Amino acid sequence: MDQRQPSCKFLIYLTNMSDNRTEVSTLGEFGLIDHLTRNIEIQNASTIVSVGDDAAVIDHFGKQTVVTNDLLVEGVHFDLMYTPLKHLGYKTVVVNVSDICAMNATPTQIILGLAFSNRFSLEALEEFYEGVYAACAFYGVDLIGGDTTSSQKGFIISCTAIGEVAPDKYVKRSGAQKGDLICVSGDLGGAYLGLTLLEREKRIFMESPGVQPDLEGEKYIVGRILKPEARKDIIEFLAAQEITPTAMIDISDGLSSDVLHICKQSEVGCVLYEEKIPIAEETRLAAFKFNLDPTACALSGGEDYELLFTIRQEDYDKITASEQISVIGYITEAEAGAQIITKGGSKHAITAQGWNAFK
Amino acid sequence: MDQRQPSCKFLIYLTNMSDNRTEVSTLGEFGLIDHLTRNIEIQNASTIVSVGDDAAVIDHFGKQTVVTNDLLVEGVHFDLMYTPLKHLGYKTVVVNVSDICAMNATPTQIILGLAFSNRFSLEALEEFYEGVYAACAFYGVDLIGGDTTSSQKGFIISCTAIGEVAPDKYVKRSGAQKGDLICVSGDLGGAYLGLTLLEREKRIFMESPGVQPDLEGEKYIVGRILKPEARKDIIEFLAAQEITPTAMIDISDGLSSDVLHICKQSEVGCVLYEEKIPIAEETRLAAFKFNLDPTACALSGGEDYELLFTIRQEDYDKITASEQISVIGYITEAEAGAQIITKGGSKHAITAQGWNAFK
Repeated sequence: MDQRQPSCKFLIYLTNMSDNRTEVSTLGEFGLIDHLTRNIEIQNASTIVSVGDDAAVIDHFGKQTVVTNDLLVEGVHFDLMYTPLKHLGYKTVVVNVSDICAMNATPTQIILGLAFSNRFSLEALEEFYEGVYAACAFYGVDLIGGDTTSSQKGFIISCTAIGEVAPDKYVKRSGAQKGDLICVSGDLGGAYLGLTLLEREKRIFMESPGVQPDLEGEKYIVGRILKPEARKDIIEFLAAQEITPTAMIDISDGLSSDVLHICKQSEVGCVLYEEKIPIAEETRLAAFKFNLDPTACALSGGEDYELLFTIRQEDYDKITASEQISVIGYITEAEAGAQIITKGGSKHAITAQGWNAFK
Repeated sequence: MDQRQPSCKFLIYLTNMSDNRTEVSTLGEFGLIDHLTRNIEIQNASTIVSVGDDAAVIDHFGKQTVVTNDLLVEGVHFDLMYTPLKHLGYKTVVVNVSDICAMNATPTQIILGLAFSNRFSLEALEEFYEGVYAACAFYGVDLIGGDTTSSQKGFIISCTAIGEVAPDKYVKRSGAQKGDLICVSGDLGGAYLGLTLLEREKRIFMESPGVQPDLEGEKYIVGRILKPEARKDIIEFLAAQEITPTAMIDISDGLSSDVLHICKQSEVGCVLYEEKIPIAEETRLAAFKFNLDPTACALSGGEDYELLFTIRQEDYDKITASEQISVIGYITEAEAGAQIITKGGSKHAITAQGWNAFK
């Protein structure tokens, strides 16, 4: 699997695969798990018992264990019309690995639960697992167990990720202090614009089924939504520079929603500078095409899986060693609230406009 | 919540609750999690960071960590027409705790992921969580995190359980040796007959909606399906007696399917004695009413969540100290296959007739 370029064809994904289709029922539940996990290679010495028993066993002498879980539901979190299953498998791992990184921990294992209707063939599941294994290899995590079952409708993915961290090195959302600098990795807003583009192309395709989408020139933003990466490299950079952030979260709901999480849990306020928010040129151009404000996309878009964290002012010099990290503001006392200073110099309150699955 | 008696009324559960209904959307995703987890009390010293961050942190100095995951899907694993949500919450924890016990480990934490459509009110979710918390309190496990999201259809539950075990005390399915004794806790077949009864009553109710089911006298088997318990007590008994089983599994798919898992993974055969298989009197009577063979129900029924394990012969005397454990056969070499000797003295091959979710 190419780690950088997402593939995206409007083939009506699942129909197309019926040429070469093995019914899952021919294997049975246990046969299916055996089949899908037959090539697992263990990468972490702490993985003692893996797939194939009632539970997995992890050895963590002298380390602390970090655990997270995400549930992804077809039609809510992903659309199989434009999401290749291989990318979906990759992203499933990324989303969970990202949560582990956001604790300043190293991801080590994942457990996967899948539920799917009989619309899914064995080949479709294999493709999903190909993406899972590619991400496991890239991030150095072991798939150590899981559960597969049937659903009445759609594809449902449950992923639990486990990581380890030296005692007391984990970073919560609640440790930000007045005067700390607010940092963000990479750039923001791209995933939201990629999704907006794919949704538009889907509408066009639904109206004129012969028309394949023209995604040339938009590879960056499409890649940001279909194949995000978790910033394990940032965790490694912070460790190498001996920086322990005071608070950290990964940006899954959007910068505004996620900075408010840090403010609420740390009982502080913040000031962000619009001009400091990192936005890629491709993202900016795509925003203009859609008549959207790039800053609004960065603030409310979500799904970028970048890391948002706070550091002590004395760590500023060390942070500048990475071009992947931008300082975008600072922490204030709670009474000052959460504010953004626009390029024009005016001040606005930050409100959570993050994605709400229940609306 | 009464730990012993399941409540079961055919009220068309979800309709009935509309008298007092709060839309989940009024809280938003984060408000919902805050609301549902506001009363959590931490029970394990190893729980360092719990609900409310990107991931949970568990400290396991000198212990090994055991992890398992189960995905439960409405319409596949449970029917809300006769499953009270409180019982479903309780059972969700039990099913996962049972997997941890089956590794000879002590359950310590769970992480819960829920997806549900807007048919579910806040009150319905609270009722589910009441069952979850009742089970957490009973088994001494901490709920440390999770994810709630929407689904297009139905209720989907993902549960990850974590446990700890002294190094090298965990028990896999693969350690059974020729000559070992095969043991099972409690009694078998009751859950299957409870399910059969509820399915029959549901059909009657669907045809004549005024008729409430008469479950008097069938409380035992209905309790076995709606409110099973994990055999943490057996793990504690084994530890007190200093018995480490050579192999262990929990009976979720049925005795025949699960004993075959041990045989396959241990590369051994087995002999079971029909007359030794523990079946409760209530189960036996219910089987006769349905014109079913009680032994067949025990072999193929599943969902009893009893423990099936093998011990060395020299541990036989110690095992007899528990009335909750039956010795039902012994392990043979692989070439002899898996056999059952009937009450009439004839020998039959054991075949997996366990539940297959894909058929």
